[in-house]
Amino acid sequence: MTDFAIRYGEHVTRARRDGRPVVALESTIISHGLPHPDNIRVAREIEQAVRDNGAVPATIGMIDGEVIVGLEDAQVERLASAEAVAKLSVRDLAIAAARRSDGATTVAATSAIAAAAGIGVFATGGLGGVHREANVTYDESADLTALARTPIVVVCAGVKSILDVGATLERLETLGVSVAGYRTSRFPGFFITDGGFDLDWQLDSPEQVADFIKARADQGVAEAALVLANPLPADEQLEPALHDRTLATGLNLLAEQNITGKAVTPFLLGHFHSSTEGRSLAVNIRIILRNAALAAQIAVAATDGSTAPVGFAVPA
Amino acid sequence: MTDFAIRYGEHVTRARRDGRPVVALESTIISHGLPHPDNIRVAREIEQAVRDNGAVPATIGMIDGEVIVGLEDAQVERLASAEAVAKLSVRDLAIAAARRSDGATTVAATSAIAAAAGIGVFATGGLGGVHREANVTYDESADLTALARTPIVVVCAGVKSILDVGATLERLETLGVSVAGYRTSRFPGFFITDGGFDLDWQLDSPEQVADFIKARADQGVAEAALVLANPLPADEQLEPALHDRTLATGLNLLAEQNITGKAVTPFLLGHFHSSTEGRSLAVNIRIILRNAALAAQIAVAATDGSTAPVGFAVPA
Amino acid sequence: MTDFAIRYGEHVTRARRDGRPVVALESTIISHGLPHPDNIRVAREIEQAVRDNGAVPATIGMIDGEVIVGLEDAQVERLASAEAVAKLSVRDLAIAAARRSDGATTVAATSAIAAAAGIGVFATGGLGGVHREANVTYDESADLTALARTPIVVVCAGVKSILDVGATLERLETLGVSVAGYRTSRFPGFFITDGGFDLDWQLDSPEQVADFIKARADQGVAEAALVLANPLPADEQLEPALHDRTLATGLNLLAEQNITGKAVTPFLLGHFHSSTEGRSLAVNIRIILRNAALAAQIAVAATDGSTAPVGFAVPA
Ligand SMILES: [Mn+2]
Ligand SMILES: [Mn+2]
Ligand SMILES: [Mn+2]
Repeated sequence: MTDFAIRYGEHVTRARRDGRPVVALESTIISHGLPHPDNIRVAREIEQAVRDNGAVPATIGMIDGEVIVGLEDAQVERLASAEAVAKLSVRDLAIAAARRSDGATTVAATSAIAAAAGIGVFATGGLGGVHREANVTYDESADLTALARTPIVVVCAGVKSILDVGATLERLETLGVSVAGYRTSRFPGFFITDGGFDLDWQLDSPEQVADFIKARADQGVAEAALVLANPLPADEQLEPALHDRTLATGLNLLAEQNITGKAVTPFLLGHFHSSTEGRSLAVNIRIILRNAALAAQIAVAATDGSTAPVGFAVPA
Repeated sequence: MTDFAIRYGEHVTRARRDGRPVVALESTIISHGLPHPDNIRVAREIEQAVRDNGAVPATIGMIDGEVIVGLEDAQVERLASAEAVAKLSVRDLAIAAARRSDGATTVAATSAIAAAAGIGVFATGGLGGVHREANVTYDESADLTALARTPIVVVCAGVKSILDVGATLERLETLGVSVAGYRTSRFPGFFITDGGFDLDWQLDSPEQVADFIKARADQGVAEAALVLANPLPADEQLEPALHDRTLATGLNLLAEQNITGKAVTPFLLGHFHSSTEGRSLAVNIRIILRNAALAAQIAVAATDGSTAPVGFAVPA
Repeated sequence: MTDFAIRYGEHVTRARRDGRPVVALESTIISHGLPHPDNIRVAREIEQAVRDNGAVPATIGMIDGEVIVGLEDAQVERLASAEAVAKLSVRDLAIAAARRSDGATTVAATSAIAAAAGIGVFATGGLGGVHREANVTYDESADLTALARTPIVVVCAGVKSILDVGATLERLETLGVSVAGYRTSRFPGFFITDGGFDLDWQLDSPEQVADFIKARADQGVAEAALVLANPLPADEQLEPALHDRTLATGLNLLAEQNITGKAVTPFLLGHFHSSTEGRSLAVNIRIILRNAALAAQIAVAATDGSTAPVGFAVPA
């Protein structure tokens, strides 16, 4: 009978053996978040940003039904180039395996796989969240509930502004997911630096985030994620007026064309990219590269001085 | 001091010892889902359907405060014949034990007990879910949250159409519960073959479902249930027009008579049974017998070729 | 590198060593629930009520980033006297540790820490819950979700009537949190004896609650809390007419002054205290003292006759 255990790319196996810091990366941004062929180039730049900051990148996805931690370059190209790649949340992983599918992993699935593999830090762009009008549609991303049971640090630029950001912050509180701003007390709005909400907590250095990771483990009380909100500097954000205008027209189009569910995020990102003549795409790429760099710095800080490497709680 | 550990019926103890495939069955369908004395006969037919397909039935319930996995025939009769039997969800099990109650276990409690006993497959009729107007009443079945933390396969015919089916599917997604159609890409509507919603995944054989079970365990990432939606063939369903008419009058009666909470499901099932002159009852019985047969085939497939029997992860 | 493990007060370390019954107590009631300097006196009276009933009190809080189980008197005074003390839910504990903060623990955090320390019983005043208009604001206390994954008995007088009590009871059901009345089948309304809702279950003695604790552990099926609702006797409650009038004016003030989130509970408690000329404060204190006494009796009953002390599942 087939063995469906997690597989590790060669570079990740080496990192595990040597106790080096590792950063998890998702594949949905490659297959669904960015247009082809930019996505292949950017996927490589993200991995390089992790390496440039002293850690080993582990891009996560599914090939032929196997969960891979540390996709090889050819595997990334395969997910980036295929016509239709399944978007896999946690609940889809075992079904997709039974069907021997290829698939790209969401924030939820990437976090859960990374934590199962003992990786403590994950860089992405933005989280899923509570959709506008979710009190009628009940459309709330599984990212939130997955993070509630997954001990990892997710470095992101907040949640996409196409969502109900206030409701998402409340759900994170209800579900017990830790939230802190990185060198800010304001929750960023993905494309824009300030998303309009205050945060209770701020963390100011990779070392302080590493202390969070150690405290969560030492206390043994919580096993939820930390959402570390890392805003773009104001001079790198999408112009707020352009952002607000684009969001408003995008939401109108959603309603007019009756687009719902999993189709919403790719549609709105596409709308942002076309309406802003590529500026939102450039911002999106800056976000993920900056988050990858910070995640690597945190993984390095968390590994320094601890006898057990933070990259892997249980070395292979 | 009393020992409240799970007790096993003799036939289940034997099956555990011999590593034979086991299928869990609930008792709420006996005590609350079907009218007396049909319920006793049907309970026996369900167990026989499991045996006819090569597995051992383990009907679950509580007698005198003891959780029993594999009720004996006399115990089934006791739950089927009593005037008022407590309906036990997961949260009621330890209180009912402290009170030495009898009780029938819901989908949530049966799943959780079965998983605790190492049983991987459970056959039932339909799941609980999000009630209509739950955004005001907050009435959402504990079945959904229990399945989110219970590694089992629940073979069912969807959720009862008296619920908000769309909202229920969204909650299952948010909570990370796997959902697949058995040889269909449409979510069934319990009494009717097609409930009006598309599914992302389809599984096509007992062996493929067994692969799901193995993949979930091998991956070690998720511990939620798989809701395997097994529709009635179109020629065995309740006539859709009769179904829709009966549902509409039932919902009106609920509102008129101000029936809420745990009283809703038995009331509406009773209304269906009387309004359709017993045809819905016959359909209900066909559903559970078909699900029991499929669950047994899955348990057999999951046991074949694995060194550890799937019936029990840890043989007694 | 700093060790962030839970620290134990000397009296709790002794109790652990000797296998004596222990009751957890929260510190938010000290820092945020009661006005200074009454709060210091009451904190001591609560601990004394536990001792008078045969158990050892373990007041829980954070000092300089360390989670303390069993605050010393001087540490209680420090939390009771500071201008602004952070209110820590489960998700805040590791961030506050990384920042070396002081903090008072909520019902959620106190329960989770107590359970991690092996303490089985916790006395408080009232739970957090679903806020009125939460279907718009999504404001639902993390107490509910934390209790869903924390095996403890929380002795309380229900949820504060400033919340949506019906919705809170539904959420507790959905989340699988056990609920029972202590010698009552009506859910109390904190300041008032009868909050207007029926309960499914009643437990009638400390021994019966101890049986619940043992049954939950023996069954091995559920790991949620029991909310044990302990109403004030009718002649000790706040006069119901005064209660209803005060609540109505308080809710109006909230809306007028646009008070939301974490500010709601302290504001409304302050309003009750001032509008009732201190009578609500006296009632509040009676509630917590009675709950502390009952919790101690339960901890004693749970320790008697068991080889492993209930105070600590795993003796230190
Ligand atoms: Mn969704
Ligand atoms: Mn309900
Ligand atoms: Mn809140």
